[in-house]
Amino acid sequence: MADYKAPLTDMNFLLFQVFSADKMWQQSANFNEQVDQETAIAILQECAKIAEQEIAPIARQGDEIGVNFTLNEEGEGGQVKTAPGYKEAFQTFAQGGWCALGGDIEYGGMGMPKIVSAFVEEMLCSADISFALYPVLTAGAALSLAKHGNEELKERYLTKLYSGEWAASMCLTEAHAGSDLGIIKTKAKPQADGSYQITGSKIFITGGEHDLTDNIIHLVLAKLPDAPDGPKGISLFLVPKITVKDNGELGKNNQVSCGAIEHKMGIHASSTCVMNFDSAQGFLIGELNKGLACMFTMMNFERIGVGIQGMSAGERSYQNALEYAKDRRQGKALNQNGTLSKTSEQISKQPDSIMVHGDVRRMLLSMKALNEGSRALSCYIALQLDYATFATGDLQQKGESLSALMTPLAKAFFTDLGFETTVAGQQVLGGHGYIREWGQEQLVRDARIAQIYEGTNGIQAMDLLLRKVVGSKGAIIKVFIAEVTDFITEQKKLDADSVESINSSGMVEFIEPLQQAITDLTDISELLVTKAGDDLNEIGVAANDYLHLFGYTAMAFVWAKMAAVAITKLQTLDNAADTEQSEFGRDFYNSKLHTAQYYYARLLPRRLSLLATIKSGSTTLFTIDDELF
Amino acid sequence: MADYKAPLTDMNFLLFQVFSADKMWQQSANFNEQVDQETAIAILQECAKIAEQEIAPIARQGDEIGVNFTLNEEGEGGQVKTAPGYKEAFQTFAQGGWCALGGDIEYGGMGMPKIVSAFVEEMLCSADISFALYPVLTAGAALSLAKHGNEELKERYLTKLYSGEWAASMCLTEAHAGSDLGIIKTKAKPQADGSYQITGSKIFITGGEHDLTDNIIHLVLAKLPDAPDGPKGISLFLVPKITVKDNGELGKNNQVSCGAIEHKMGIHASSTCVMNFDSAQGFLIGELNKGLACMFTMMNFERIGVGIQGMSAGERSYQNALEYAKDRRQGKALNQNGTLSKTSEQISKQPDSIMVHGDVRRMLLSMKALNEGSRALSCYIALQLDYATFATGDLQQKGESLSALMTPLAKAFFTDLGFETTVAGQQVLGGHGYIREWGQEQLVRDARIAQIYEGTNGIQAMDLLLRKVVGSKGAIIKVFIAEVTDFITEQKKLDADSVESINSSGMVEFIEPLQQAITDLTDISELLVTKAGDDLNEIGVAANDYLHLFGYTAMAFVWAKMAAVAITKLQTLDNAADTEQSEFGRDFYNSKLHTAQYYYARLLPRRLSLLATIKSGSTTLFTIDDELF
Repeated sequence: MADYKAPLTDMNFLLFQVFSADKMWQQSANFNEQVDQETAIAILQECAKIAEQEIAPIARQGDEIGVNFTLNEEGEGGQVKTAPGYKEAFQTFAQGGWCALGGDIEYGGMGMPKIVSAFVEEMLCSADISFALYPVLTAGAALSLAKHGNEELKERYLTKLYSGEWAASMCLTEAHAGSDLGIIKTKAKPQADGSYQITGSKIFITGGEHDLTDNIIHLVLAKLPDAPDGPKGISLFLVPKITVKDNGELGKNNQVSCGAIEHKMGIHASSTCVMNFDSAQGFLIGELNKGLACMFTMMNFERIGVGIQGMSAGERSYQNALEYAKDRRQGKALNQNGTLSKTSEQISKQPDSIMVHGDVRRMLLSMKALNEGSRALSCYIALQLDYATFATGDLQQKGESLSALMTPLAKAFFTDLGFETTVAGQQVLGGHGYIREWGQEQLVRDARIAQIYEGTNGIQAMDLLLRKVVGSKGAIIKVFIAEVTDFITEQKKLDADSVESINSSGMVEFIEPLQQAITDLTDISELLVTKAGDDLNEIGVAANDYLHLFGYTAMAFVWAKMAAVAITKLQTLDNAADTEQSEFGRDFYNSKLHTAQYYYARLLPRRLSLLATIKSGSTTLFTIDDELF
Repeated sequence: MADYKAPLTDMNFLLFQVFSADKMWQQSANFNEQVDQETAIAILQECAKIAEQEIAPIARQGDEIGVNFTLNEEGEGGQVKTAPGYKEAFQTFAQGGWCALGGDIEYGGMGMPKIVSAFVEEMLCSADISFALYPVLTAGAALSLAKHGNEELKERYLTKLYSGEWAASMCLTEAHAGSDLGIIKTKAKPQADGSYQITGSKIFITGGEHDLTDNIIHLVLAKLPDAPDGPKGISLFLVPKITVKDNGELGKNNQVSCGAIEHKMGIHASSTCVMNFDSAQGFLIGELNKGLACMFTMMNFERIGVGIQGMSAGERSYQNALEYAKDRRQGKALNQNGTLSKTSEQISKQPDSIMVHGDVRRMLLSMKALNEGSRALSCYIALQLDYATFATGDLQQKGESLSALMTPLAKAFFTDLGFETTVAGQQVLGGHGYIREWGQEQLVRDARIAQIYEGTNGIQAMDLLLRKVVGSKGAIIKVFIAEVTDFITEQKKLDADSVESINSSGMVEFIEPLQQAITDLTDISELLVTKAGDDLNEIGVAANDYLHLFGYTAMAFVWAKMAAVAITKLQTLDNAADTEQSEFGRDFYNSKLHTAQYYYARLLPRRLSLLATIKSGSTTLFTIDDELF
C-alpha cells in the first residue's frame, strides 16, 4: 500500500480560493478570534502528520487482528481489547487536543468551524476509518451534549470528552428497531433524585466498549413508561459506563455491559457492540420526549462526516491505484498521440505503464473527479452548516435551508461514490487488488458500511425528497437552484464585462451544461412535488434516483466554481512574468481544469438515465404483488 | 441465511419455452441421443439437490475457516487443507458423475450441451463459489485437453478428470504478467523422450494445490528457449503434480510445488496458489507456439461460466434479501393504494413489512430483473456456443459469430451486475447485511473476484469492442442486430396477422423501446468503427461503456422474448377453462411480464447515459498529462 499523503493543497484551495472561508470567519463574531487562514493551515498540517504517521500505519494490522472480546469471570460484562497500536495512537491524538477541535470553548473546546473539522475527519478516515470512528462519534455525542445538556452535565462530562480522557457512544438501534426508532423498547424509569433507571438492549453500537479511555459516556434513546407512542415519546439520556462522583472522580461501575461484538465485513478494528442496560443510572439530556430532536442536532454534523468517510476511502484508494498504475507495466499503448503511424523501430519490446490504457485512465479520472468533487461539495455544505449555526439574518437562513437540504445528500451521495471509487481503485490493480497485500480490498470493505449506518442511504434519500423537497413544497430546493442560477448569471456577466466572450473565457463549456442540469432539476422537482399530492409512493420510488440526480448536479456546480478559479489563476499566470509562480503552481490549476472537463464530459451525463428513470414513475413497482417477487 | 432454492422453473422455462433447446437437440447429430427434455430436467433436478443439500451448507464455514497452508518438513512443497466438509462434498459430487457432465463421450464424458452445464454451474456457484471453482476449472482444463491433446494424453488424463479422481488447474499468470501474457518467463526445455522440462513460477493459480483429489493436472503456459517474442511464442503443457506411469498408476512426485497461498477479500475456501515448477516433467498440448489458441478454446466456455458466477451470487443474495424483507417490519407504508385517505382507525400500530417501501421494492426488483435477465441472456449465449461447436452450415456460422461477440459480454456484464445485485441485496438488510450472520456480505466479497479474474472486465470490454466489433469492421455486431431486428419484425407480423393490434397484444411497450435501443446500438457501433480508423484510443476509452450499452440492449432483447412467451401463455390460460393450469401457473408468467415491464421502465434507461458518455469521446482522458493525475 502506498503511504497516505493528505491532500493539503486541495483543502487549502477549497477553503481560501473557492469558498473564501477566511472572509466568513473575519465577519463572524464566533470565529474572528478563533481561526484565520494561518491557524487553519497549521491545524490541517498538524493533523496531516498524525494521520500519515501515527494512524495510517496501524490500519492494516487493525483489520487483520480486529477487536478482541472476552467475558469477565462471571460470564458477563464483556471487555473489548483494541488492536495493537490503537491505544497509543488514541493517546497521541487526545494529547494533541484533537478531541476538542470543534468543541464549545466554554468547556475547553477549540471552537473550530465545521469546514475545518470536516477536513480533519477526512484525513483521519483516509488513514483508518476504524480508528477515526472512536473520536468522531465522541465529537458527535459531545455536540449533542453541548447543545442540550444542562450546566452540570456539561461541566462534568463535556470537559472530559474534549480532553479525550473519556469517549462516547450513541445508543439508538435495537434488534427490532433500526430505521424505525419510534418502536424502541428501552425504558427509562424516573428516580427520586431526578436521575433515571435505564433498562434495555441496544445493538450495533460503535465504540460501545473498548480500552482506549477510562470511561465511556453513552447517549441512549429510551422511553418513559407513560411516553406517547412512536417517535414523539423518545427521550435522550446520558449513561456513563462508570458513574462519576460529585468531585468528578470515577465511582462504581454503572449497570451497563457489553454482551457481544459483531463480526463484520469490514471496520474490523472498530468495536460494534451489543450494549445491555440493566437499571443503569442515566441523566436526561434536553427535554422529555424531545430525544430525537436532541439527537438530530448531532445528526447533521455527523451525517456529513459519514459522507466524508466514503470520500476519504476513495481518496486513499486513488492514491494506491495511481501509484500502482504508474509502476505496473502491462500491454502496449494502442497508438501514440492518437495516430497509428508508429514505426516498428519506435516500438520498444518493454510493455508500457498501464497509464497508457484508456480504460485505466477512465477509472483513475473517474475516481479523481468524484473524490475532488465530493471534497468540494462537502466543503460547501460544511460552510452552510457553519452559517446555519453561527451566522445571523439571511446568511443564517440560507445556511439552514441548504444544510438541511444537503446533509442527506452528503451522507448518501458521497458514500455511494466512495464505494464506487474504492471498487474502481481495486479494479485498477486487477488480481493484486483482490488480495490483502495492497490494502485496496480493505478500503472496499471499510467504505461499504458508510452506505448503511447513520441512516441507510435509502433513508437519506427519503429525508431529502420527502421531508425536505416535498415537505417544503419545493421551496428549499429553490434556495439551491437560486444559488446556482446566481453563479451562472455572475459568470455570464463577468464574461460580458470582459473583452473576451464567454466562449473564449473557457467557462462556456461548463455554464451551458450546468444551466441545462439546473433546468432539469427544477422541472423534475416540481413534477415530484405535484405527484406527491396524489401518491406518496411516487416519492418513495423516486427518492434514490432523485438524490443522485441532485448530487451530480450539485457536483457540477462546485466543479464549475473550481474551474472558474483555475481559469482565472491560469490567466494571471499567463499575464505575469514567466518567473512568477502562483501559490500552488500551474500544474495544480491545469489538473483542476482538466478534471472539471472530464467530470462534465463523462460523469455528469449519468443524470440523463436518472431523469428517465424518475419520469417512469412508480407503476411497475406497485402493480406487482408481493407474492410475485 | 435463507436456504438456497435452485430456480428450476425459470431454467425449465428458458430451455424449453423461450429458447426451444429441445428442438435444437433433436436436430443435432451430437445431441439427439444424449439429451432430451426429460433427461435435462432430471439432470437439473439432481444437481439442485446436491447444490441445496450438500454444497450450500458448507459455504459459510468455508468462508470462516478458509484453506490451511503448511510447508512440509523441508520447508518447501506446501500442502493445502480445504475447509471441513469440502472433501466429502467433492466426493459426493464426483461419484455422482458430475465432473463428466460436459465431457467427451469417447473418454467417459456425458456430452451434455453447454446450455445444460451452464445451469449446473449456476447452481454450484449459488451454493458456494469457492467449492464450485474446483470442478468448474477442472472441466475447463479438460475441455482444452479434449480438443487439443493427443490420444495418449487423453486416455491417461481425461478419463481421470471426468471421474473426478483427479482435478486440474490453469497456470497462466506470473507476477509480472497478468493481462499481458506475451511476456511470461516460464521456460519449457525439450527432452530427448519428447517431454519437456518446465521451469518457472506462476501466481494466482486457483486450485493449484488442495487435498480433494489424488492428483492435480496443471495446464501451464510456457515458452521454448527459441520461441518468438510475445504471444506467438507461447505453448501449452500438461504438468501433473504426481507423474503417471504407463499403466496409469501414480508414480513419483513431479517437481511441482505450492510456495504460498494468497489471503483474499473473498472465496476464502478456494485455494489461490503460487505454483513453482522446477524442471518439472511436462507434455505438450496441441502445437508448439499455439498455446494461447489452445487455451482460448477453453476460455469461451470458461468465461461465460465466470459471468454466471456473478449472476449466481446475485440470485442467492436476492433469495436472502427477499426472505428478510418479507419478515422485517420497519416503518409504515406511505399510503395505501396510492391514496392518502387512510383514517386513523385503519392505521395499525405495528410497523409494516419493509416490502411496502418503494426503495426496498426498487432494490429487490432491480435484483430480480437483472438476475433473470442475466440468466436468460446466458442461456441464449450458451445456445450459440452449442451451435458454434456442434451445428453445421449457417447455424454454426451464426453461433460462432454470436458466441465470439457475446462471450466477453457475458463475462463482464454479468459479473458487474452480479456485484451490483449482491451489494443491493446487502443494502436491503441494512446493518444486518454488513455483519456476517446473514451471509450477504460474503456474497459481495465472493462475487467481487469474478470481475477481475479470467481477464479483467476492462480486458473483456476491449476484446468485445476492439477485437470483435472493430476487428470485424462492424460485421459481427450486425449479426446480433439482425437477430433482434428479425424478432421485432416477427412480433409486428404476428400482431398484424392477429385480430388484435400490436398495442392490444401487450408487446408494443417492449418492441418500440427495443427498436430504439437497437437503432442507437447500430449508430454508435458504426461511429466507433469509423473513429477507430483515426484514433484507437477512442476505442480504449469507449470500451467499458460500450460493453454495458450492448449488455442492456441484449438484455432488453431477451426480456422481450420472455415477455412474448408470458403474454402468449397468459392468453392461453385466459382462453382455457378456468380449471386448466399451465405447467408453471399463472403467477409465474405474471411475474415474468411484470419484471419485464420493470426492466424496460427502470433499467434499460441506463443506456442513455452510456450513449452520451461514449459520444463524448476520448479527449478529456488523453489531453491530461500523467503528472496531473
